[in-house]
Amino acid sequence: MAPLSSYVSGSWHVPPDEGAPLVDAVTGEEIGRISSAGVDMGAALAYGRRVGGPALRELTFHQRAVLLKRLGLHLLEQREELYALSARTGATLGDSKFDVDGGIGAALSYASKAKRELPNDTVLVDGAVEPLGKGGTFVGQHVCTPLHGVAVQINAFNFPVWGPLEKFAPAFLAGVPTLVKPAGQTAYLTARLVELIIASGILPEGTLQLVCGGVGDLFDHLTEQDLVGFTGSASTARLLRAHPVVVDRSVRFNAEADSLNCSILGPDATPGTQEFDLFVKQFVAEMTVKAGQKCTAIRRALVPADLMDDVADAARERLARVTVGNPADPDVRMGALAGLGQREEVRRSLKVLMDAGRIVFGDPERVDVVGADAERGAFLSPVLLRVDDSGRAEPHEVEAFGPASTLIPYEGADQAVALAARGRGSLVGSVVTADPGFARDVVLGVAPWHGRLLVLNSEDAKESTGHGSPLPALVHGGPGRAGGGEEMGGMRGVLHHMQRTAVQAGPSMLSAITGQWTSGAPRTETEVHPFRKHLEEIRVGDTVVAGPRTVTLADIEHFAEFTGDTFYAHMDEDAAKANPFFGGRVAHGYLIVSFAAGLFVEPTPGPVLANYGLENLRFLAPLFPGDDVTVALTAKQITPREDADYGEVRWDTEVTNQEGVTVAKYDVLTLVAKRAEKE
Amino acid sequence: MAPLSSYVSGSWHVPPDEGAPLVDAVTGEEIGRISSAGVDMGAALAYGRRVGGPALRELTFHQRAVLLKRLGLHLLEQREELYALSARTGATLGDSKFDVDGGIGAALSYASKAKRELPNDTVLVDGAVEPLGKGGTFVGQHVCTPLHGVAVQINAFNFPVWGPLEKFAPAFLAGVPTLVKPAGQTAYLTARLVELIIASGILPEGTLQLVCGGVGDLFDHLTEQDLVGFTGSASTARLLRAHPVVVDRSVRFNAEADSLNCSILGPDATPGTQEFDLFVKQFVAEMTVKAGQKCTAIRRALVPADLMDDVADAARERLARVTVGNPADPDVRMGALAGLGQREEVRRSLKVLMDAGRIVFGDPERVDVVGADAERGAFLSPVLLRVDDSGRAEPHEVEAFGPASTLIPYEGADQAVALAARGRGSLVGSVVTADPGFARDVVLGVAPWHGRLLVLNSEDAKESTGHGSPLPALVHGGPGRAGGGEEMGGMRGVLHHMQRTAVQAGPSMLSAITGQWTSGAPRTETEVHPFRKHLEEIRVGDTVVAGPRTVTLADIEHFAEFTGDTFYAHMDEDAAKANPFFGGRVAHGYLIVSFAAGLFVEPTPGPVLANYGLENLRFLAPLFPGDDVTVALTAKQITPREDADYGEVRWDTEVTNQEGVTVAKYDVLTLVAKRAEKE
Repeated sequence: MAPLSSYVSGSWHVPPDEGAPLVDAVTGEEIGRISSAGVDMGAALAYGRRVGGPALRELTFHQRAVLLKRLGLHLLEQREELYALSARTGATLGDSKFDVDGGIGAALSYASKAKRELPNDTVLVDGAVEPLGKGGTFVGQHVCTPLHGVAVQINAFNFPVWGPLEKFAPAFLAGVPTLVKPAGQTAYLTARLVELIIASGILPEGTLQLVCGGVGDLFDHLTEQDLVGFTGSASTARLLRAHPVVVDRSVRFNAEADSLNCSILGPDATPGTQEFDLFVKQFVAEMTVKAGQKCTAIRRALVPADLMDDVADAARERLARVTVGNPADPDVRMGALAGLGQREEVRRSLKVLMDAGRIVFGDPERVDVVGADAERGAFLSPVLLRVDDSGRAEPHEVEAFGPASTLIPYEGADQAVALAARGRGSLVGSVVTADPGFARDVVLGVAPWHGRLLVLNSEDAKESTGHGSPLPALVHGGPGRAGGGEEMGGMRGVLHHMQRTAVQAGPSMLSAITGQWTSGAPRTETEVHPFRKHLEEIRVGDTVVAGPRTVTLADIEHFAEFTGDTFYAHMDEDAAKANPFFGGRVAHGYLIVSFAAGLFVEPTPGPVLANYGLENLRFLAPLFPGDDVTVALTAKQITPREDADYGEVRWDTEVTNQEGVTVAKYDVLTLVAKRAEKE
Repeated sequence: MAPLSSYVSGSWHVPPDEGAPLVDAVTGEEIGRISSAGVDMGAALAYGRRVGGPALRELTFHQRAVLLKRLGLHLLEQREELYALSARTGATLGDSKFDVDGGIGAALSYASKAKRELPNDTVLVDGAVEPLGKGGTFVGQHVCTPLHGVAVQINAFNFPVWGPLEKFAPAFLAGVPTLVKPAGQTAYLTARLVELIIASGILPEGTLQLVCGGVGDLFDHLTEQDLVGFTGSASTARLLRAHPVVVDRSVRFNAEADSLNCSILGPDATPGTQEFDLFVKQFVAEMTVKAGQKCTAIRRALVPADLMDDVADAARERLARVTVGNPADPDVRMGALAGLGQREEVRRSLKVLMDAGRIVFGDPERVDVVGADAERGAFLSPVLLRVDDSGRAEPHEVEAFGPASTLIPYEGADQAVALAARGRGSLVGSVVTADPGFARDVVLGVAPWHGRLLVLNSEDAKESTGHGSPLPALVHGGPGRAGGGEEMGGMRGVLHHMQRTAVQAGPSMLSAITGQWTSGAPRTETEVHPFRKHLEEIRVGDTVVAGPRTVTLADIEHFAEFTGDTFYAHMDEDAAKANPFFGGRVAHGYLIVSFAAGLFVEPTPGPVLANYGLENLRFLAPLFPGDDVTVALTAKQITPREDADYGEVRWDTEVTNQEGVTVAKYDVLTLVAKRAEKE
């Protein structure tokens, strides 16, 4: 059997050598071989940069999102095959869904979030326009553009589907091609995933490559525009981060390392409370899902000292019900570790931890196994330890990357915070409490040491996705020991693949560069009212100026009576004079925007379908009875929808008085129809 | 004379040894000595963490901003003294202002921006609330909390005042104490700056420390919560970034290294155009300001091939008018380099560059000097080179960190972009053109290689701050050779000193943690209308529910007639039916928000002073004639002003119809008075 092929430089590369064996975690049988011999790493990177990058950069964010959604839907149909392969990694069906469905879900979530939160354009504007001069002729704005390199993924063995997909989705949306390097043990599952993706033909060529086997001299070929996203052990992260090429060329290096995550039980959550049960249930689940081989699993349970026995008893009882064995057996709750080597490592770590405390459940050397051979498969009992001296270093420093965790006592929120920090940086922590004060103190206290924190109690238990689940909308990664990185976090994860550049220019030049109208740029008054133009006909800068209309005292009084808004500033001259901002009766803000709409609206049916919102409305100067209002409405940003016959147009709206003073400024948001297709 | 003192662990430390000499750049005289002997680096870091950090974290962002503003105003009064010291570094008065006024300006700009853009709180919420479950009981939001470490600054010699202040301001606002390590050559100026700051007593103790002299074993004491902000050469950046402690503990390391910045002349900017003159004037200014010792200076001028002679001639003519000499002489345009060693380095680099091209102005070995000794002071002539073969590697790789630059020809925008990228990452680039198409192509083309880009032409020339000036509102730093870092950028620079943490919780728990009301958390209907409460009396969650009010067809028609907004969706049943979103006549959005205000407003004078704006208004469902509206207004965020007798209150506002369907959702922004002070 030839080793797994790599997909590089546009074709499948079959290794010329025998490669190393890959072993079924349950049966110990060889199920394949792996080698990256003969892969030209430099050529693969160059191919990604030369073919994949330009193809992606041709597409807008929304066009990339459409492809990503298609890809996710396509993979949903292939799930059964992926589950079957996943079982060979030791995963139960539940574990496999966590990996496979989680990965596809992340891709789909990214696709739909991108359509809502990114422009349908190739340039991303980041933040507001910054005035840089008093005259308004010199302004700044940040734009984000895709890096011209390749996003290299170095993945861990434990999530062979989720890992590649959660990293791929934001890179792809950003416009950056990916090269996936899976961990050896479970590479056959990632390889099949990539094969399915490539075969689908959905992605532009060059946007996804795969290297099975060793990384070879890949790092020597990295450039300033490439990125590395690493998930795995802290020690490997260190080696790669200090690679001379990474250092010399300031290659963006994001590490996500397993960490000594903690879960903190609140002092209010005594036995009999819902929170106590939630804590124990989650704790045991985190120990046993994926046989505890999750970077996010709970390694330390911080428990009020006087609840230690209760928690130990309740956890023991639940753990006793966990059936270990062949994941194909539906009764099995926990499968095998990824391999025998992995099991040896966990046993070694457990020995160190046992010096600091004692085992209250399980035996590292013995486990009852259903439907498999306990020694040929990489099976291990869940092991719960208890360290009553919370000052001991071991439970805060030594990680057993398997179904193992330690109970540690604390007294008071301050000590809980201090103990949590002894992990020196974690991906995630959880606090199980119904006490808002305790939750606030602990969450804000441990936040500098964590990338994610879950507060679990009866309010959110039903919908909570749990301590161990990173979510695409939230950042994943933590400081210090957890690698100091940050992945996902919604559109933040897309930005990680882009260069942020401050652009300084005059407003009309800035508009030309960003494709968005900038305040101070010329307004183009068009012959046709811009509301009579279809989406494709509107140009950024198209403007209608309407008015003036005089706002009389009678108008103000009438509006007050009609709406019921009889606030004294509109109705009572003396009281209004006493107000520090007005100096006399003023028109209602709502009257001003209503009159402005009355001035700029086009009454008859046309391409403008609806005004669906307003943003950033500020009333900047009072409008007094007898003042005039004039409104200028200018097309600022145009966002066609890829999947509908309309799109959004954002209009810069400025209301001025008879002296040209700006009274109100806001964005009007409209839906505008595309031209009907002609046959 | 004892060497410069360091300010560590709460007192001034006088080095016990003789230290190394510091030399006046103009006269060559010894003006002081420097040594960090005897400084306990670990103790200094621990002191910052133990004393400075907690003191800062007690303060809100606005309270920190008030102190920063006081500090800036205090330093403004000390400018003359700083200018005088600065002259000894070789700087002209203009150069000194660039450094001193620039630094103080950055601090003041940060102070005022923080008051506008950050909450008056200790927690910073980053981004929107993310729904994580369909039922609304499980949500996520990112919070940013200050790192519990010390921000260590390793500064360059060329900006002894601006460097420390631009790094200090965002760290201080974030709540992170600073330790400043200035470069040796000009440390006496930074030391005096820190002395003035400490003596002012404005800063909480422990928030600013100073180490003059070598860095010693400082790096060995860094922890996961410390940060390093380095400015200097790419080679030193490499060494420090790969320091085992930085790597092992994932210490945040931000590098800003000098780079081969380019300025690109547009093909439209031929002799006689304003842009041609702007280009040459800026180019010569960048060569000579600070004697070219700016990380942001132009090292490469990319010029259309057929304009090379014109640019060379015009630049030569301007350079001939640059008087070099003692910066104390008012006729002098360019002072000395920072030291004789620096001059030797520049000469060495120029030799390499001369292999690739030829000198068109200046002589590296000879310069006429006014009011000083050309050999004892570190004087050097401006040197302009010309490399006609743009394929040569030297001008894209070798930096002469002094008054030197190279003209390089290009043909077409694509080649200009490719040549710019050969710098492999720059802090800044500029494009001088009046052609929006060329500007867009070049800016977006080179953006992935740049941290900042200036487009210069007649539109912004009058207000432009120029190629070489980083601005506090814009990011400073660039990819690759420029160090891969990012400083400043307004509040982004504050966030660099904080940990972003995703918090997952039920809405009421999330509100308790962030201090902001979260949709789905309980609304507290108070006995007193919340608009009758002073700022200090309002609690997050305080709610008024008002209504229902029926919106009749007559109301809609009346509103249309009164405002002039006779859009067909409100007026014409048949046309409205044809609209894809409405299915019949609907009320105006502006009518809905006006009626809502009529329902929730408190007419008589009270603490609410004004409704100054609306944000994030979305019309979520149509409201038909005969429907009712009810409005719920809930205090969401309270922002007292430190320097006024009022503050801002943001109210979550939800308008529902008779079936409880949300019709509109928005934030109402009000100004609310504090209680009058009682004697």
